[in-house]
Amino acid sequence: MKDLAYYNGRITGADEMMIPAGDRAFYFGDGIYDFSTVHNKKMFALKDHLDRFFGNVNRMKIDLGLTREELEKLCLELIDRLDPDVKEAKIYMQASRGTAPRNHAFPEGAKGNLFFSLRPGGMKELGRKVSAITKEDVRFEMCDVKTLNLLCSVLAQQEASEKGCYEAILHRGETVTEGSHSAVALIKGGCFVTPPLDRFILPSVSRKHFIEISTALGIPVREEKFTVSDMKTSDEVLIMSASAPLNVCEKIDGCEVGGRAPEIVSAYEKAYKKRIEDETGMKY
Amino acid sequence: MKDLAYYNGRITGADEMMIPAGDRAFYFGDGIYDFSTVHNKKMFALKDHLDRFFGNVNRMKIDLGLTREELEKLCLELIDRLDPDVKEAKIYMQASRGTAPRNHAFPEGAKGNLFFSLRPGGMKELGRKVSAITKEDVRFEMCDVKTLNLLCSVLAQQEASEKGCYEAILHRGETVTEGSHSAVALIKGGCFVTPPLDRFILPSVSRKHFIEISTALGIPVREEKFTVSDMKTSDEVLIMSASAPLNVCEKIDGCEVGGRAPEIVSAYEKAYKKRIEDETGMKY
Repeated sequence: MKDLAYYNGRITGADEMMIPAGDRAFYFGDGIYDFSTVHNKKMFALKDHLDRFFGNVNRMKIDLGLTREELEKLCLELIDRLDPDVKEAKIYMQASRGTAPRNHAFPEGAKGNLFFSLRPGGMKELGRKVSAITKEDVRFEMCDVKTLNLLCSVLAQQEASEKGCYEAILHRGETVTEGSHSAVALIKGGCFVTPPLDRFILPSVSRKHFIEISTALGIPVREEKFTVSDMKTSDEVLIMSASAPLNVCEKIDGCEVGGRAPEIVSAYEKAYKKRIEDETGMKY
Repeated sequence: MKDLAYYNGRITGADEMMIPAGDRAFYFGDGIYDFSTVHNKKMFALKDHLDRFFGNVNRMKIDLGLTREELEKLCLELIDRLDPDVKEAKIYMQASRGTAPRNHAFPEGAKGNLFFSLRPGGMKELGRKVSAITKEDVRFEMCDVKTLNLLCSVLAQQEASEKGCYEAILHRGETVTEGSHSAVALIKGGCFVTPPLDRFILPSVSRKHFIEISTALGIPVREEKFTVSDMKTSDEVLIMSASAPLNVCEKIDGCEVGGRAPEIVSAYEKAYKKRIEDETGMKY
């Protein structure tokens, strides 16, 4: 298939899937998701993404009725259904609490719903220069779970897009948290600086990878909070996500930022491309 | 029909409706909703609920492609489809930003999706005694919009249900906001006390009605913040929603509360029942 969607065992084209309006994802956002890319039929960072997805399923007490191993097997089976000429794809997976008439409390004995979509497309170019806005972070205090409650992120991203920017970097008071759909890190004084994991940011897989790469490259890692002003005066501002692992921010709120550690950015870019190639055989 | 669902012009039984997995409500919670009850084929507080629903559609910049008048006409047409023996029903309406492959920014020229469900069932008994737990409010700072991002409310309600309670009363620090699916007010020194409208609480229709009723009864209204401790020592704690307009809390976190202004509760109960009867002809 060129693209596909999966829902509780049913498979259709990506745009054709119909789901019951009683799915609690539809009216409560009562579920979680994850996302990665597929290269040469291999899912990049499979273990990281499935660990996080399965962890969130358990934390939200969703009963999917399948083991971590069965989930992985299903993932691979779906990827295998893609046509051989689909060299790269995006894989999105979603779990919700189940299907029932609307009532806040968990439905008795509810069986979770599992949804996938696979569409052609690869990662965005690594090392790309982008611009961003900053915006007050008004999201809930459960940002460490990759939930379907994304309206605040949608509104922030829309504001960024309307201003011709790639991302909205969110902050609580002066403290930067993350982007509307990305993690944020700085290069400062030769160090990789990223906010610590708490309930205000997602445990981003890209963030984890760049911490590992920094360590391998001998670049000190500091997991600590930083302010909007720290960010604007840092050597580089990096914006990272599964679909676009390495963006270099050159403008925030219309003012030039970063550009003072291009050699570190280049080293990251090279190391990340090698990681993709080592894992999937795809040359980036 | 005994019950029904509506989705962009299509009508089915309430449990049969299928919607596209590309509806942004399904994966972003990118939409809003409202809810009321129907008695003798008349929707209670129709103007209040449709005003709020339509206001939220506009605030979220969802393009439903129909006017407030057309929306009201559609509501009435759907209610009219209910069998004559369905004396009372619950009407739920939902608008989402549209259907498109997943991308945070608004899809270009997206047409919103409109969903309704109508099911038999009336209001819960007025003046009912209930119990509640208290819980830190970790929701986003956009609680004045009736959005589909309800995971925090779901988790709070589940905790209350597991403890055998009707509701979880939320508080930010010491300040009470509202319940997971209700508004909260106190009777204190002969006054009706309710938190002021801000981004931390929904402009509840029931709250508005009890303010109007208080004024009509000569009971002073104070729209001001109160703490968990204020609540626990008040004369009465009222929990109000469209499906259960008047609950009297007799226990919070296992401790007895209220019970010191039953004559005011009785006056509210009588006045609200009269309001339902005047508007719909249904005797409660």
